[in-house]
Amino acid sequence: MQIDDIAAYMAHVGAAARAASTAMAAASTASKDRALRALAARLRSSADALAIANACDIAAAESAGLAAPMVDRLRLTPKVIETVAEGCEQIAAMPDPIGEITGVKRRPSGISVGQMRVPLGVFGMIYESRPNVTIEAASLAVKSGNACILRGGSEALHSNLALWALVQAALADAGLPPDAVQLVQTTDRAAVGRLITMPERVDVIIPRGGKGLIERISAEARVPVIKHLDGNCHVYVDAEVDLDLAVKVTDNAKTQKYSPCNAAESLLVHAAQAAAFLPRIGAVFAAKGVEVRGCERTRTLLPQAVAATEADWATEYLAPVISVKVVDSLDEAIAHVNRWGSHHTDAILTTNHPNAMRFLREVDSASVMVNTSTRFADGFEYGLGAEIGISTDKFHARGPVGLEGLTSMKWVVLGQGEIRQ
Amino acid sequence: MQIDDIAAYMAHVGAAARAASTAMAAASTASKDRALRALAARLRSSADALAIANACDIAAAESAGLAAPMVDRLRLTPKVIETVAEGCEQIAAMPDPIGEITGVKRRPSGISVGQMRVPLGVFGMIYESRPNVTIEAASLAVKSGNACILRGGSEALHSNLALWALVQAALADAGLPPDAVQLVQTTDRAAVGRLITMPERVDVIIPRGGKGLIERISAEARVPVIKHLDGNCHVYVDAEVDLDLAVKVTDNAKTQKYSPCNAAESLLVHAAQAAAFLPRIGAVFAAKGVEVRGCERTRTLLPQAVAATEADWATEYLAPVISVKVVDSLDEAIAHVNRWGSHHTDAILTTNHPNAMRFLREVDSASVMVNTSTRFADGFEYGLGAEIGISTDKFHARGPVGLEGLTSMKWVVLGQGEIRQ
Repeated sequence: MQIDDIAAYMAHVGAAARAASTAMAAASTASKDRALRALAARLRSSADALAIANACDIAAAESAGLAAPMVDRLRLTPKVIETVAEGCEQIAAMPDPIGEITGVKRRPSGISVGQMRVPLGVFGMIYESRPNVTIEAASLAVKSGNACILRGGSEALHSNLALWALVQAALADAGLPPDAVQLVQTTDRAAVGRLITMPERVDVIIPRGGKGLIERISAEARVPVIKHLDGNCHVYVDAEVDLDLAVKVTDNAKTQKYSPCNAAESLLVHAAQAAAFLPRIGAVFAAKGVEVRGCERTRTLLPQAVAATEADWATEYLAPVISVKVVDSLDEAIAHVNRWGSHHTDAILTTNHPNAMRFLREVDSASVMVNTSTRFADGFEYGLGAEIGISTDKFHARGPVGLEGLTSMKWVVLGQGEIRQ
Repeated sequence: MQIDDIAAYMAHVGAAARAASTAMAAASTASKDRALRALAARLRSSADALAIANACDIAAAESAGLAAPMVDRLRLTPKVIETVAEGCEQIAAMPDPIGEITGVKRRPSGISVGQMRVPLGVFGMIYESRPNVTIEAASLAVKSGNACILRGGSEALHSNLALWALVQAALADAGLPPDAVQLVQTTDRAAVGRLITMPERVDVIIPRGGKGLIERISAEARVPVIKHLDGNCHVYVDAEVDLDLAVKVTDNAKTQKYSPCNAAESLLVHAAQAAAFLPRIGAVFAAKGVEVRGCERTRTLLPQAVAATEADWATEYLAPVISVKVVDSLDEAIAHVNRWGSHHTDAILTTNHPNAMRFLREVDSASVMVNTSTRFADGFEYGLGAEIGISTDKFHARGPVGLEGLTSMKWVVLGQGEIRQ
């Protein structure tokens, strides 16, 4: 779609979302769930229309020479469509977070004071060329009673437009305002600049994508951003430890999958266990082709290790590489994690209870773990039912963010004519 | 204090606070409470030193021709000192918010997942020339396990320096790092500009003061801000209502005190009650000298009312003035509050249960009330024990903010060697 005045267009999109957000906030659980099930049905019955739109994006991407893995992410295969349809049904089956009233207490003045969970209003989602995210974001918006404005990658525009038409039809099926889910219909990047600087229309921005993109959005946004930049996650093997457990968990944290943000990137080992532990985990890493970048003491125990530089302590490799450091104390380990980590997810492996508790308290990360793999830092593994994103900020939502991250608690006060003296 | 390089000075202040925040986060409840009680004792035993410092500020303010009410706010009278000392003791007596672990649940994978309440880290407080706020902010920081950087009004600098010395001594008394509470020792406004743009040193900014100051800080800050700009609070008198209750509560909401942000500024009356209610409340307002700015229908019932303009619907008077509008439905009342209000505190007066519930759900304000006075929107009245500020934002803390607003919930995961499949 050719749009000449991006500012006016985005103001229009924002106003439509804001207007629809009022009806969404007041929508019944039944109608929201009906919209989600209607969306699932429409996805399944629209395979042909989706395939045509998707083919258009794929052809353009291939002729533009897009790398094969990027083209693969674009594909709306029957399997991808079934997965997002099932996702809609799962979200429909979850409890409604909206309307919950908690902690109502009678005060000495006679009033009763509690809190009610309500939607934030309008969220903006900025993401890359994975059309399935369009449905995920729309379904989270519907369930949480928010409106949303979606800005997907430009390579997926035709697919996103086709999916968006299904979302709007499903909202109408359930008597909800189709405007509640908006899709930015231009690939002009100026639209993103407007989206993140409209506090009167948009309450929060959720970016997904590369670190550079997210840093730029965070720097320029005039509304809160739910984001994580890095997952430089640590495993610390304490002085008292079950070595078999330590080998198994460290292996899993690093090698079960290299690309997720919750994979371990750095291993700290207490000096008392270095000679026993490092050769064992070193053999695992060698067998799996994981490069070790170690401190000097690590290198005396693991000849295959190359010398780590300071930059290694701060690096999220997302690859078969790990930095390894021998430390002399729990204090040194905690200080290292807080200094070099990214406040995402860090684990201690120990049999010592006070050490476990100190690590939990003092490591300043969104998820802190004892005797288990950092790979568990995930909304589904935590039981949130759905994951909107992961936050490494401390304000509002922290760590894996579920539907509640798209809500706020307002105060409700019930009286019988009480007045302030 | 003459400081030439503000950027370097603020970086130093921020680094000291950040370094101290680690020890504060790990501090025991006993040592934090010991520091608070030591501070109360030092305040009481330092009356002479405080009087000398305060006299210096008062003399400068008077010779600069500061208005008398402003000079009064500056005064550290024995009563003010006793009040803040008691405040420290009250905060010491409150439960420690830090370390609470909630919602631990076993997951199918075998891990147990819950959340632990921890400090945010470092907050910056920017306030006007009320030296008592220095002690309030410092004591909230100590109890919540945060470090803080205080930037009080320049007219109170000598008083604040004297109070700060007591805070640092009290921290030392309890074995806590004196650097945990920092006071900006320059009146150069560039220091504020630095304070609000150091995300690596400061996690959140809490400004107190005029709307212009808070708007400027919000626009320029590179960290989250806990704030409210306006308290344009509404009372809506529904079609079904106890008229005696409505007169009593409306009177209290408007006239009990004119200056607080939770005082009512606008009155909406359902048409079905206008003829019965408006003359009664009009007589109350006339007797108390409250000016009424009304819509046309209001003016036919209240001859004393002047004509309201559109600007009146958006105005927080903080004075004996109220805008009054007759509405034809609950929908119109809710739409008016959401359109013109400031999302602070709004009340419905009604005997109709469905209408009460709709108002609670659909009015998008930090506090929504039924049959009671907006004046109750207050941290102490809500039972928070202490109030850091009031937030009209929806992100993180909303409404009256207690110690919990200075904390975040991180995830704790307890395992026994579980790995991700």
